[in-house]
Amino acid sequence: MDQLAEHILVLDPHKEDLLRLADYLCAKGYQVKTASTIDNANELLASTSVDLVFADVTNADIAHLSLGQADSYLIPLVVVSETPNSGDVVACLRAGASDYILKPVNDYINVDHVIDRILEKVRLSKHNKHLQKELEEGYKKLSAGLQELRADQKAGLQIQKKMLPKNEKKVNDIFFEHRVMPSLYLSGDFLDYFNLDDHRSLFYFADVSGHGASSAFVTVLLKNLTMRLKRNFKRGSSDEISCPNDFLKRVNLELLASDLGKHVTMFAGILDEKNQELRYSVGGHFPMPVYCEQGRAEYLEGKGMAVGLFPEPEFEVYHRKITPEFRITVFSDGILEVMPGETLNDKEQLLLDVVAENRAGVAELFSSLGLDDLKEIPDDIAFLSVSAVSDGSKR
Amino acid sequence: MDQLAEHILVLDPHKEDLLRLADYLCAKGYQVKTASTIDNANELLASTSVDLVFADVTNADIAHLSLGQADSYLIPLVVVSETPNSGDVVACLRAGASDYILKPVNDYINVDHVIDRILEKVRLSKHNKHLQKELEEGYKKLSAGLQELRADQKAGLQIQKKMLPKNEKKVNDIFFEHRVMPSLYLSGDFLDYFNLDDHRSLFYFADVSGHGASSAFVTVLLKNLTMRLKRNFKRGSSDEISCPNDFLKRVNLELLASDLGKHVTMFAGILDEKNQELRYSVGGHFPMPVYCEQGRAEYLEGKGMAVGLFPEPEFEVYHRKITPEFRITVFSDGILEVMPGETLNDKEQLLLDVVAENRAGVAELFSSLGLDDLKEIPDDIAFLSVSAVSDGSKR
Repeated sequence: MDQLAEHILVLDPHKEDLLRLADYLCAKGYQVKTASTIDNANELLASTSVDLVFADVTNADIAHLSLGQADSYLIPLVVVSETPNSGDVVACLRAGASDYILKPVNDYINVDHVIDRILEKVRLSKHNKHLQKELEEGYKKLSAGLQELRADQKAGLQIQKKMLPKNEKKVNDIFFEHRVMPSLYLSGDFLDYFNLDDHRSLFYFADVSGHGASSAFVTVLLKNLTMRLKRNFKRGSSDEISCPNDFLKRVNLELLASDLGKHVTMFAGILDEKNQELRYSVGGHFPMPVYCEQGRAEYLEGKGMAVGLFPEPEFEVYHRKITPEFRITVFSDGILEVMPGETLNDKEQLLLDVVAENRAGVAELFSSLGLDDLKEIPDDIAFLSVSAVSDGSKR
Repeated sequence: MDQLAEHILVLDPHKEDLLRLADYLCAKGYQVKTASTIDNANELLASTSVDLVFADVTNADIAHLSLGQADSYLIPLVVVSETPNSGDVVACLRAGASDYILKPVNDYINVDHVIDRILEKVRLSKHNKHLQKELEEGYKKLSAGLQELRADQKAGLQIQKKMLPKNEKKVNDIFFEHRVMPSLYLSGDFLDYFNLDDHRSLFYFADVSGHGASSAFVTVLLKNLTMRLKRNFKRGSSDEISCPNDFLKRVNLELLASDLGKHVTMFAGILDEKNQELRYSVGGHFPMPVYCEQGRAEYLEGKGMAVGLFPEPEFEVYHRKITPEFRITVFSDGILEVMPGETLNDKEQLLLDVVAENRAGVAELFSSLGLDDLKEIPDDIAFLSVSAVSDGSKR
């Protein structure tokens, strides 16, 4: 007999009926078990595997058959009985029978149909349960994988945060404030600011091509290079970092030498408080920083090629006189992808307007641009605001 | 009437029966619609929302009722009819009816039970479908999130691969071969090898504390520092890189200055072919590299503190004469977590045995240690094999 065939239990106190149906089912290739009492049937149900039960029982008997399985699954039951009363049929079905075959059983084609219909349902239901289980397990696995990767990226983020300056920092008499919002966890936007001496401070803003881990690697190099140049400057062995164009050239050199296939758009500025002057160079940074004083905002002039692409770039040094009320706001281009506005011109104008109206710092700028509860950040976004400490509202 | 109540359609050609049942259901608070013909009922089924149908129909009529919904869901049907024939009841249920109520309807408590039972099933089934949909959507979302993070890490991996030397490389007359297996995507194990001049080559092996993105950041610094030291050495401005202890000291200095909170265990060796000598320093690297010649393998002597933890470490320089048949194999400690063996001693002995028996390169070493199809890599694993080019089998 086929070991894969379904197991059918036939319960009938009438021996002749029992044997006739059992013989028929055997001949059809099913694995057949027989019982003449409910107790007998329950023993078989408890000790063997049964897929379907045929039973000559009354609706009151049904509750005494142990059809329940561990996983709250019920073995389907077909009542095979003689009744003149349509109410009995309804009662049996309400008591849990899947179908009803009227005795005497003559129409065996009908028996086949009943079996096929029920077993098809059983198979479907088992298949569904299997799919459901697979889906649940897949979900758990994915979940764990995601958690692992997230934990990894978060650890990376901690390192990256260590490389960024404090979110708000006074350097000489200049107040710096920034925010970095990575698209994923790790950011390719980077910035730093520190003093060179008692009246000069450097700030730079870099947007590494791409975003995420691969771009974040380059920010490590940038931070390290700047740290070394600063050290060299302080001990008098090199003044590259005090000239914005030389600084960009040096970054260019190191990026090419590292051969990581990444380039950076940068803006580097040196604020000279004694001479009330900003000197800066542009390494392909876009949009240009916004210079604002007395409620008037305009983009700083200037241009220059991206850093880390060409072997011998030239960067111009631009000069701009500053007043004590100045504020410079630098954005990475990620801002343009999420702010309102149809055209690039619209967006650039909006940036100017928002900066001109806003004197209260980066948090307010964020709100004004509708960035407070962004659901998705397609590209890293960073802001840097630079102003004279005398600027009132925020301290 | 309660807008949230279920909608029940009653179909009955006998006006009196229709009204009596409809009135009863209205009084129970259901939203009731009535129809006296099947066409009439189908119009209502097509144009309005129906949760349950009571119909006085024959089993042959059932197929003409439009109970099917867009999502292959069938509106449940209760046949309410008069029949002396139990076969009719069975036929109706086989044709798709969920229940059968015999006319004349006197037992309204039974009607309530039938409605409750069916609507409970409908609610359960809808709830299940909802849960299923949520699970499927959650799965899709997770899947997308995971894919995004994986793509990000893979991009990082590409960068990291660019920093590693070729997997097999001849430097002067020394043959270097390595493999790095990250635990996730990004590795905190790093190594490099290159020539200093025509008879000296440097190789180093570093295992950054932790693993993944945060540790990978430090490998960027290591690579960059080494590149600069090599450049300085070649132009004669510094020879730190030609002295393994000075090299480790310099890494120590840069790591502390970077303030990333990461330290590294390192091994740095300089092979001097002219003097047939290996000079090396140990920065907390474990297990020690295995030196092998003529089938005898032993761990190199030496010790030293981890790099990047203490401000002024001292690293000793060890000397070892080498013969033309030498092979040095360096492992990161991740290997100890996946190789067979009960105790650390067992594992260290096994490493020696495997290296002693194995002359055919890193791939064979992997197989011998049973690492070919690791399912999970708890910590990054790296191998480096260094041997004289004259060593036969692999070229």
